[in-house]
Amino acid sequence: MKKEILEILKNNKNSFISGEELSNKLGVTRTAIWKYINILKEEGYKIESISRKGYKLVEEPDILSREELLIELKLSRFVDDIYYFDKVDSTNSFAKKLALEGAKEGTIILSNEQTGGRGRLGRVWISPPCSSISMSLILKPSIRPWDAAKITEITAAAVAIAIEKVTNLDVNIKWPNDIIIQNKKVCGILTEMGAELDNINYVIVGIGINVNIDEFPDEIKEVATSLKKVAGKEISRKEIVINIVREFEKLYYNFIETGSLKETVEICKRKSATLGKTVKIINKSETIIAEAVDINDEGELLVRKENGEIISVISGEVSVRGINGYI
Amino acid sequence: MKKEILEILKNNKNSFISGEELSNKLGVTRTAIWKYINILKEEGYKIESISRKGYKLVEEPDILSREELLIELKLSRFVDDIYYFDKVDSTNSFAKKLALEGAKEGTIILSNEQTGGRGRLGRVWISPPCSSISMSLILKPSIRPWDAAKITEITAAAVAIAIEKVTNLDVNIKWPNDIIIQNKKVCGILTEMGAELDNINYVIVGIGINVNIDEFPDEIKEVATSLKKVAGKEISRKEIVINIVREFEKLYYNFIETGSLKETVEICKRKSATLGKTVKIINKSETIIAEAVDINDEGELLVRKENGEIISVISGEVSVRGINGYI
Repeated sequence: MKKEILEILKNNKNSFISGEELSNKLGVTRTAIWKYINILKEEGYKIESISRKGYKLVEEPDILSREELLIELKLSRFVDDIYYFDKVDSTNSFAKKLALEGAKEGTIILSNEQTGGRGRLGRVWISPPCSSISMSLILKPSIRPWDAAKITEITAAAVAIAIEKVTNLDVNIKWPNDIIIQNKKVCGILTEMGAELDNINYVIVGIGINVNIDEFPDEIKEVATSLKKVAGKEISRKEIVINIVREFEKLYYNFIETGSLKETVEICKRKSATLGKTVKIINKSETIIAEAVDINDEGELLVRKENGEIISVISGEVSVRGINGYI
Repeated sequence: MKKEILEILKNNKNSFISGEELSNKLGVTRTAIWKYINILKEEGYKIESISRKGYKLVEEPDILSREELLIELKLSRFVDDIYYFDKVDSTNSFAKKLALEGAKEGTIILSNEQTGGRGRLGRVWISPPCSSISMSLILKPSIRPWDAAKITEITAAAVAIAIEKVTNLDVNIKWPNDIIIQNKKVCGILTEMGAELDNINYVIVGIGINVNIDEFPDEIKEVATSLKKVAGKEISRKEIVINIVREFEKLYYNFIETGSLKETVEICKRKSATLGKTVKIINKSETIIAEAVDINDEGELLVRKENGEIISVISGEVSVRGINGYI
């Protein structure tokens, strides 16, 4: 009901709608309407109420809530359901549990704060309240496990475009899973999956973005930044989330329907912070220094080794000279 | 305590041990000893008790219990803990939950019955009580997701050798994940994993064996058989489980420590029901009819297509002409 009232107020923004009209439209008492209006006010919505005229939404806060997002994304083909938490250990961990219990593709988990946010290989990822985005998407694509890396690249491309649209900042993708601005990391993507040997059961894409974080811990302040620090102003987390979902679904369905990653690769190449640079690739068995020369149609990074040989890299630990402390 | 008493009785099989001695060794009252002896009797252990002489284990039932297995496998390097259930939906599903919660490598889940046993691609796998083995192993190998298929082959080789040792039957492996006897399936292996793009978090290997099943449902009775049906006598589930763990750990550690699958591949080739046969390989995009010619050092099946080209198959749906209804 709260969602329905909010939706009507948003559709009539800056004009009054009477309690009676709301009550008739939604089939609940005027007292119930009044209660929900108070809840919305408490959440931060500025709603003017004048007797005989009714209610007018005058200002919307930058809040991430299930209702807000369901309204803003109601035309989305992708979104099945949205879970929003004030605090959670890790949105990816929660998403995994949901996926095992049968949650559908298009389920999105968001949290205002993560207390145990994770990066690749179990590394810590900080997600302070109110200033970061922690979101996980549940996907159930009919692809093979070794194609899951493509989902990372689709997400990276979507996040890069979304951030550019909202902030006008110049955004780069450090292949395959980091978004950087001015050579510092603003977003990391963590893709995890549950799979049989040749069949994926689910993919979880976790997206962590430093939006309005003012200060970073000493250990990472040389390599991390936030959208606010670069833009010099607060950025709306809601706008970023909405735009990510919109850009993601375009690229994702394009890939699913055509089997081609072309559109994504085009963005990843154009926005690449990696191509043309010296990279250090750390595998379990060896470390390779090479020059990143291209991203192929499968999304693999092509690098030229010192002996001239060109090899493709599917995923893994890639450092780019000049970025994130690799000098 | 039940485990400790059982262990002492097993170590003194066919000779008496007094209640007093048990009580002294274990530091509990003789009444407590008497209680546990009664529980063991109820579970099916034949224990003679004569006053002044004490207790004598005269017959052990073929029961799969946590205590039995922990005693029999106490020298195992692999076993970390064993969960035993009378009934569970799926040992693989339970194992996945445990793995997500941090269960260690070497955790084994067994159930007397599965109510929702699964095969590959979500197919039904029947696991009636008391006559089947449903076991899942939790592994945390430091390998890449695309190497998980090797775990399936290690398991298939271990199961084949274990069944041969216990039954003396002639056992074959239908690459990659079925064990067959006289062209009918007696065991299926379902490997599932949780992974990041290039790093496995956990692998669950599920092993379902038709041990003493007398009758199969109409839908599968042409393609399935049980050890009992072929051997003409009851087979000890406990012996099979113990031998599987012993054979598995040999092959598994050999692979982990050397990185080579040689020992496993040698068994898979020697026991193969697939090599030399016409096979039908069903991929998402195409169906290939070819001749299975070899299994390479990576455990991949090499097949010769009709045009003479030899390709390798990593995993997937492979039917072998003459087996399981493919004529």
